[in-house]
Amino acid sequence: MEIVDLRSDTVTKPTAAMRQAMFEAEVGDDGYGEDPTVQELEKLAAQMTGKEAGLFVTSGTQGNQLAVMVHAGKCSEVICEATAHMFGSETGGMAALTGAQPYPVIAPDGKLTPELIEPAIRKKKMNVPSTSLIAVENTHNSAGGVYYTPPELAAIKEVATQYALPVHMDGARIFNAAVAQNIPVADLARYADSMQMCLSKGLCAPVGSVLVGSADFIRQARRYRRLLGGGMRQVGIIAAAGIVALKTMVSRLSEDHAHARLLGEAVAATKLNTDLAKVQTNIVMADVSPLGMQAAQFVEILREHNIRASEYGKYKVRMVTHHDVSADQIQYAIKVLKKIAG
Amino acid sequence: MEIVDLRSDTVTKPTAAMRQAMFEAEVGDDGYGEDPTVQELEKLAAQMTGKEAGLFVTSGTQGNQLAVMVHAGKCSEVICEATAHMFGSETGGMAALTGAQPYPVIAPDGKLTPELIEPAIRKKKMNVPSTSLIAVENTHNSAGGVYYTPPELAAIKEVATQYALPVHMDGARIFNAAVAQNIPVADLARYADSMQMCLSKGLCAPVGSVLVGSADFIRQARRYRRLLGGGMRQVGIIAAAGIVALKTMVSRLSEDHAHARLLGEAVAATKLNTDLAKVQTNIVMADVSPLGMQAAQFVEILREHNIRASEYGKYKVRMVTHHDVSADQIQYAIKVLKKIAG
Amino acid sequence: MEIVDLRSDTVTKPTAAMRQAMFEAEVGDDGYGEDPTVQELEKLAAQMTGKEAGLFVTSGTQGNQLAVMVHAGKCSEVICEATAHMFGSETGGMAALTGAQPYPVIAPDGKLTPELIEPAIRKKKMNVPSTSLIAVENTHNSAGGVYYTPPELAAIKEVATQYALPVHMDGARIFNAAVAQNIPVADLARYADSMQMCLSKGLCAPVGSVLVGSADFIRQARRYRRLLGGGMRQVGIIAAAGIVALKTMVSRLSEDHAHARLLGEAVAATKLNTDLAKVQTNIVMADVSPLGMQAAQFVEILREHNIRASEYGKYKVRMVTHHDVSADQIQYAIKVLKKIAG
Amino acid sequence: MEIVDLRSDTVTKPTAAMRQAMFEAEVGDDGYGEDPTVQELEKLAAQMTGKEAGLFVTSGTQGNQLAVMVHAGKCSEVICEATAHMFGSETGGMAALTGAQPYPVIAPDGKLTPELIEPAIRKKKMNVPSTSLIAVENTHNSAGGVYYTPPELAAIKEVATQYALPVHMDGARIFNAAVAQNIPVADLARYADSMQMCLSKGLCAPVGSVLVGSADFIRQARRYRRLLGGGMRQVGIIAAAGIVALKTMVSRLSEDHAHARLLGEAVAATKLNTDLAKVQTNIVMADVSPLGMQAAQFVEILREHNIRASEYGKYKVRMVTHHDVSADQIQYAIKVLKKIAG
Repeated sequence: MEIVDLRSDTVTKPTAAMRQAMFEAEVGDDGYGEDPTVQELEKLAAQMTGKEAGLFVTSGTQGNQLAVMVHAGKCSEVICEATAHMFGSETGGMAALTGAQPYPVIAPDGKLTPELIEPAIRKKKMNVPSTSLIAVENTHNSAGGVYYTPPELAAIKEVATQYALPVHMDGARIFNAAVAQNIPVADLARYADSMQMCLSKGLCAPVGSVLVGSADFIRQARRYRRLLGGGMRQVGIIAAAGIVALKTMVSRLSEDHAHARLLGEAVAATKLNTDLAKVQTNIVMADVSPLGMQAAQFVEILREHNIRASEYGKYKVRMVTHHDVSADQIQYAIKVLKKIAG
Repeated sequence: MEIVDLRSDTVTKPTAAMRQAMFEAEVGDDGYGEDPTVQELEKLAAQMTGKEAGLFVTSGTQGNQLAVMVHAGKCSEVICEATAHMFGSETGGMAALTGAQPYPVIAPDGKLTPELIEPAIRKKKMNVPSTSLIAVENTHNSAGGVYYTPPELAAIKEVATQYALPVHMDGARIFNAAVAQNIPVADLARYADSMQMCLSKGLCAPVGSVLVGSADFIRQARRYRRLLGGGMRQVGIIAAAGIVALKTMVSRLSEDHAHARLLGEAVAATKLNTDLAKVQTNIVMADVSPLGMQAAQFVEILREHNIRASEYGKYKVRMVTHHDVSADQIQYAIKVLKKIAG
Repeated sequence: MEIVDLRSDTVTKPTAAMRQAMFEAEVGDDGYGEDPTVQELEKLAAQMTGKEAGLFVTSGTQGNQLAVMVHAGKCSEVICEATAHMFGSETGGMAALTGAQPYPVIAPDGKLTPELIEPAIRKKKMNVPSTSLIAVENTHNSAGGVYYTPPELAAIKEVATQYALPVHMDGARIFNAAVAQNIPVADLARYADSMQMCLSKGLCAPVGSVLVGSADFIRQARRYRRLLGGGMRQVGIIAAAGIVALKTMVSRLSEDHAHARLLGEAVAATKLNTDLAKVQTNIVMADVSPLGMQAAQFVEILREHNIRASEYGKYKVRMVTHHDVSADQIQYAIKVLKKIAG
Repeated sequence: MEIVDLRSDTVTKPTAAMRQAMFEAEVGDDGYGEDPTVQELEKLAAQMTGKEAGLFVTSGTQGNQLAVMVHAGKCSEVICEATAHMFGSETGGMAALTGAQPYPVIAPDGKLTPELIEPAIRKKKMNVPSTSLIAVENTHNSAGGVYYTPPELAAIKEVATQYALPVHMDGARIFNAAVAQNIPVADLARYADSMQMCLSKGLCAPVGSVLVGSADFIRQARRYRRLLGGGMRQVGIIAAAGIVALKTMVSRLSEDHAHARLLGEAVAATKLNTDLAKVQTNIVMADVSPLGMQAAQFVEILREHNIRASEYGKYKVRMVTHHDVSADQIQYAIKVLKKIAG
């Protein structure tokens, strides 16, 4: 029987249209700035987000870390949320690549606020790291896919401006945030000095993200990308899929959100705990402790029913809806959840 | 009128005995390992703490950062308390010098516990920084000079051992911790793989700290000290004062503690808030918000009375007792506090 | 008129077979280790080079720098040739990513020898960086595409072994070295502990290189790749082209070499200076100073004749033959060279 | 019998006047900027060198590396001489602390010239490290204590200015350079944007160097000094000796130079090779290969005669004259050299 893969939206495979676009992509040597397709993608991403320029990168991690390299530096500190991807899931890149230290702030629902940020901004003192950057994650993965609204971001941008700090947005799933709020992505991006957004995940491109920001920011990031070995040659091949992703795959994320809602409501009806208020996009977090078991066990039971999900800590299981999980598969998953946790 | 300087015990000046010892110190070129006085100091420090070897360093910061350089590395993480000196007051050194990122854990009284540490130890995963070190600060400065007891440290060492992690102790004021508990410093040091202890501060030496640990650890730290430019030539001059500090200045710390207690009780009797349970060594933290003012204002008022104290955040004022504050000065300070906050 | 692009073999475009392979590639999420195509590529590369394991990377620079990250470290030194790509063309990555410093050794023809290497190996001393790695470039780009022979590499490996140093080979054009000597690539790779080889350049894949080495080396490099943001998702798309490159594009490099020889002999017959002994693979270096002009001017004149070439320093012009330069185009270039420099 | 220690001028011990000055030094907490003695020293050093500001550091290495931290950065390159202390004897600090890579240039007599520097300045290109600093060593230790003259430095400064590059001078022995030329040290310092000068070595202070430069440069260096743990408390103790060094010990270096000359001429009269033209200050390099032995053996033979010298590579032996080697000891050494190598 086929597998229902709810581990992550990173497992999505390129669509037929993407395969075709890659097959036909016009390419050149991007080392010489001559690949028309990657240039089209970078321009498109900049336009959609209202930024001056874009840079294709091989992963969201690379986009985030390049932003830290440009914005921060040695002896400086990056304010981020305590369960943010940039703090806990990027191999300690801030410190290793930039020499900057994270200042992780605990936010109950994963979302920073001016009230949480301001006390974390350091006083300028010789022996104290200088606050250099505020990083937000939108949607916030570990918090269950919750999104920041424009007013929430505006408030963060305001405190950032007050302290002359840039804001970087980890927009690995920014299109989920935009679609869930039925607004253009630019209405979220406008509050960030830089943002990276993944073309893979819900948008189904096989590889890559785009980092956007000012022309000067991108110029610096492009050089650091070379340092990381992220400069590529006939990269238009994969960029072509990214163009398809941005042009045709955004609005369909609402299906994933509807599926997550169905799944979330089903989980809520079992003995498992879930916070339905946080099921805002394509992620459902289920606390399995009421069953008297740990996440690993529950994931194993799901696997025996041909359903894949991810452990998130000791007791939480994450399920992510995406393009490659059909409505029928969601119904099947709901049936299984009722059976094993009902 | 003379100044009562309660800003920090770092302001203590070398004693006459130290001046004499420095005047007479036998010296040699420590670059060739030929300074007998620094060698005596390093041996003495190792003996007192029950470690194999010691290394003279120019500051507590240098001692702590060398320990991180040896124990940790790129893509790794150091668990420390959220208000620890190593996190907030060493210019972001972990990241800048080692490429390691701090994992600051909030402890209500500044003291880590197995319950706080264990959830912060990362699962081994490719994209997750590896936990490499647990760092404790004893006494804990920002928390008001509270100390860890041997059983508390034993519990931390146990969880560390379970996860094969080393423990580093920032013992900038470790002798205050020992004297306050009336135990030898070795009874605290035994739970740490490495420890740095300041010879300045309460012990009055003009310059320096000693880092102690295994012979192999010190061998590596010695090389990194050279990298930081901390290798010195006829360093016996200042080491001589350190020997006097370790041999003659430890037990007198009890006076500072008695002074701090008097001061703390006086503060508690005013409108200011202080947590007397935390006045365990030579530090008193006073919350000035009940006066409707901020720390900066209160410090200024004290200054007008020839008393110096330090701001600690927006509303807290820190007062530190030490060798160069006499019993009379303490009485004077108490009188002033009653007058301005009574 | 069409452009004859002799700037670099990096401009080669993916072949029809590659396009087809990418179109049909079976893919999975390589973040979960589930992309069968990239795994096939990594295994194939390991087999061809006689190594335990392989790792797909986005560029030769990324492969080289990952090798340095694994082999070297802070306070260490990498012996390389003074005009090596790793020293001068990777944005100072050794220092920026690893904290290691290069020890560039001048070799008249770009090739290190035991006689050049041994004096550069540092004596072990506290304040002296430790030699940690010997890096060779085969073929050597800046030296005009000259190759190391197996006996030359054996001699280097011997001195390396004597000092317990690993050898890394920058094999950006290792297949040119193998084909020119009519030997399997494994006969060159055997003398290196690690090697990276480009799938783009002469082999025409659009993107990527493979780093090969021991299983343990690759395990560490894989983690550092994540740090650099080089971990990708459905990377089988581009890996598919790499498989075609390794399976079908190697032997045809002899055509490029024949073209380079023709071109080199033509250059030698003009007023330009070239060292025919160094025209061993697909690169021709021409010194334009006998014409009383600088490289930039000569490149401009070529451009007016629809020929592109690269400046290499003030007076040298580099011409590289490759798959996308036809025999007719070579004849045309020869005619132009005669005309403008004859 | 007493030892004649010609290994290095770093072995000099503090003079009686220095002991006295340290005994009486007025001190304060330099962490609060309140040590009057270190401030006096820093001002004095700035005045003597014609710079805006000075910073006391614990070693020449620390001074040099702080300069690199301020002037250079990641992805950048420092041009230095191939046998310079900053390249080979500072534990690879440029790369480890700054992430900058050295570009070592071979100069026959250790001295850079515009002709050597200009080709090493990199063209600005995305993947090429940016040249960020030119570092000169005056006097140059490994080259045998040769000095740069003002016109030589002016020429270097000119090329630096042309390319908008700063110049740092490693003036570990800058006073030897000044005294040998009978000029004020400011006449050398004027061609450098920053300079470090050692108070130990020939000037006999037990510990420390001063880094000088613009006020803004020193402000940044001061912060980085804190990062390295080089911030100290009652540092006036050792600064006091530094003041004595700068005020009273400079002119006497001419004695050391006279001694070196005597020693050099004696060496030249034996079978050993030495280049008398390079015996310009207090260093004599002797090539022992004509005796058919290696440096280590010759050093051992000297040791049996109670003379200490240093190996410099396989065949060279370095002898350094200084305050603690008397005229009689020089005569004795000359006698021994005649006897064992005559």
